[in-house]
Amino acid sequence: MNIDMIEAAADRIRGHARVTPLLTSPFLDEIAGRRVLIKVEALQKTGSFKYRGARAAISALDPATRAKGVIAVSSGNHAQGIALAAREHDIPAVIVMPHDAPALKIANTRAYGAEVVFYERGREDRDAVGARETAARGLTMIKPFNEPEVIAGQGSVGLEIAEQAAARSVTEADVLVCCGGGGLTSGVALSLEARAPGLRARPVEPENFDDVARSLATGEIQSNASESGSICDAIITPAPGQITFGIMSRLCGPGIVVPEEDCLRAMAAAFQRLKVVLEPGGAIALAAALFHPDQVSGDAVIAVASGGNVDAEMFTTALSRYGGA
Amino acid sequence: MNIDMIEAAADRIRGHARVTPLLTSPFLDEIAGRRVLIKVEALQKTGSFKYRGARAAISALDPATRAKGVIAVSSGNHAQGIALAAREHDIPAVIVMPHDAPALKIANTRAYGAEVVFYERGREDRDAVGARETAARGLTMIKPFNEPEVIAGQGSVGLEIAEQAAARSVTEADVLVCCGGGGLTSGVALSLEARAPGLRARPVEPENFDDVARSLATGEIQSNASESGSICDAIITPAPGQITFGIMSRLCGPGIVVPEEDCLRAMAAAFQRLKVVLEPGGAIALAAALFHPDQVSGDAVIAVASGGNVDAEMFTTALSRYGGA
Repeated sequence: MNIDMIEAAADRIRGHARVTPLLTSPFLDEIAGRRVLIKVEALQKTGSFKYRGARAAISALDPATRAKGVIAVSSGNHAQGIALAAREHDIPAVIVMPHDAPALKIANTRAYGAEVVFYERGREDRDAVGARETAARGLTMIKPFNEPEVIAGQGSVGLEIAEQAAARSVTEADVLVCCGGGGLTSGVALSLEARAPGLRARPVEPENFDDVARSLATGEIQSNASESGSICDAIITPAPGQITFGIMSRLCGPGIVVPEEDCLRAMAAAFQRLKVVLEPGGAIALAAALFHPDQVSGDAVIAVASGGNVDAEMFTTALSRYGGA
Repeated sequence: MNIDMIEAAADRIRGHARVTPLLTSPFLDEIAGRRVLIKVEALQKTGSFKYRGARAAISALDPATRAKGVIAVSSGNHAQGIALAAREHDIPAVIVMPHDAPALKIANTRAYGAEVVFYERGREDRDAVGARETAARGLTMIKPFNEPEVIAGQGSVGLEIAEQAAARSVTEADVLVCCGGGGLTSGVALSLEARAPGLRARPVEPENFDDVARSLATGEIQSNASESGSICDAIITPAPGQITFGIMSRLCGPGIVVPEEDCLRAMAAAFQRLKVVLEPGGAIALAAALFHPDQVSGDAVIAVASGGNVDAEMFTTALSRYGGA
């Protein structure tokens, strides 16, 4: 993994992925006590940064392999990214989901043209189901984060941040990144190392799901005790990957861990001050920037708002609790 | 009023106003039955396009006049645009508001650095109060729409649409514009005439507040029976202005009138598919594009989403009614 791979991925997805805005608000600056710049990947196609890695990985396949189709094990943002990128390439996509996945996620994935294959949660192993389908149909599995071309695609977020921050004269700052398995965080970290060495990536996670923070602190990959029970579902993974952990441990500052309730507060702030919709996991870096300013240093902070795929009920909860702020 | 004034205004506000994105979603295309491109001015500074006209008008003043300060009669998006643009120029701004304006709007206007002067609704005439303050302090009144430099600033939206639509190979389409007094609509119409003659501006208004549609249909300026009682408060004005009506009657297609309930549906669709927050009046052009496709023709339609300054309660209402769509 190096900057050349990221530049190549960025070239391949150019004109397909959106260049998302780096937004600011004087009201958010006031809350944080410093300048806050928000990279709004919720405005990316499919509502999250995941489309970048999906498009980068699919476009990197040799044409004969690609034509057979791709497969992903996901019920979330990665699934939608793969489904759309596959449709754009006019190739089949199979998404393996638990049988009890939310109806909206199933419908969205199908609407992007993918075939959904279910496994029975608790009775079947999702990876085994994925491997079976992969072998039976000659598909290529696109892993959600521990996959070089996926990391390279997510790294394009970092290239844009480097450029957009420099245009605002921000060259020294922490870059807070919503972190699950570390694909986005490690891709951004590699881009910043090469293109904006004064910017430093830092993973942000919810309390009780702080595998990356603990992994960085101990120097060894640590796991979460649970994979469920968080409103930040988009960024809950068992543990960082070997590749992403290696990159993060070399380049990232310490992880930041915040109560998930703060994600709801950050969602309300983004609603009121930025006019953008964030999901809880996609708001956690902004939550750290706004409500945990003691965790970062410097005159400015950059927060990646990684996704906005939230249902009306959860969003309403955030507004009812914090929308009058 | 001509394209040169708009180009000059666009030059003056460049680097200050945001170039807002022209977003799309395959799901919205499906609802509308044609391609839908949404120009998201809710992502503009202050949450609406009004900042453009405010910045354009203030920057057009000669420096000695400007230094004395500006004044606006508004409790809405124009007030916030003027307040921010004045602060950026480091000049005083006075905003005349009714004494019972919502606390949040007062607080926002003050937070942008403006002085708020109240008038008693029903007992005092707001324009008389505005004139008194203007004279007493040597301020310059910036009218919200019937003002050439304001129209020129709003016209920069049309320049961006012309360029962004061409980049997506859309050169023939109706451009639906949320319409109050017609400043945005007429500015956009002038830009399209010069830079994208296959695109045609069309004003969109709520039922019972369709002064512009009736004015265009009859060829004479018509008024609304009421100035209150609509959830689309941002686009409710007594009647189009002489200048804006002249431009619209020469360049615009017929007005489109939709039930205001459709604005709530469009807000829910923008939440779910675009991840952007729209206010009712700012969603009405999208409502026409999505739910009244028979009113437009062609393979594609462009809708300006003009603002996102909505409170949590109204937004929650939209989601509770239509958020599961």
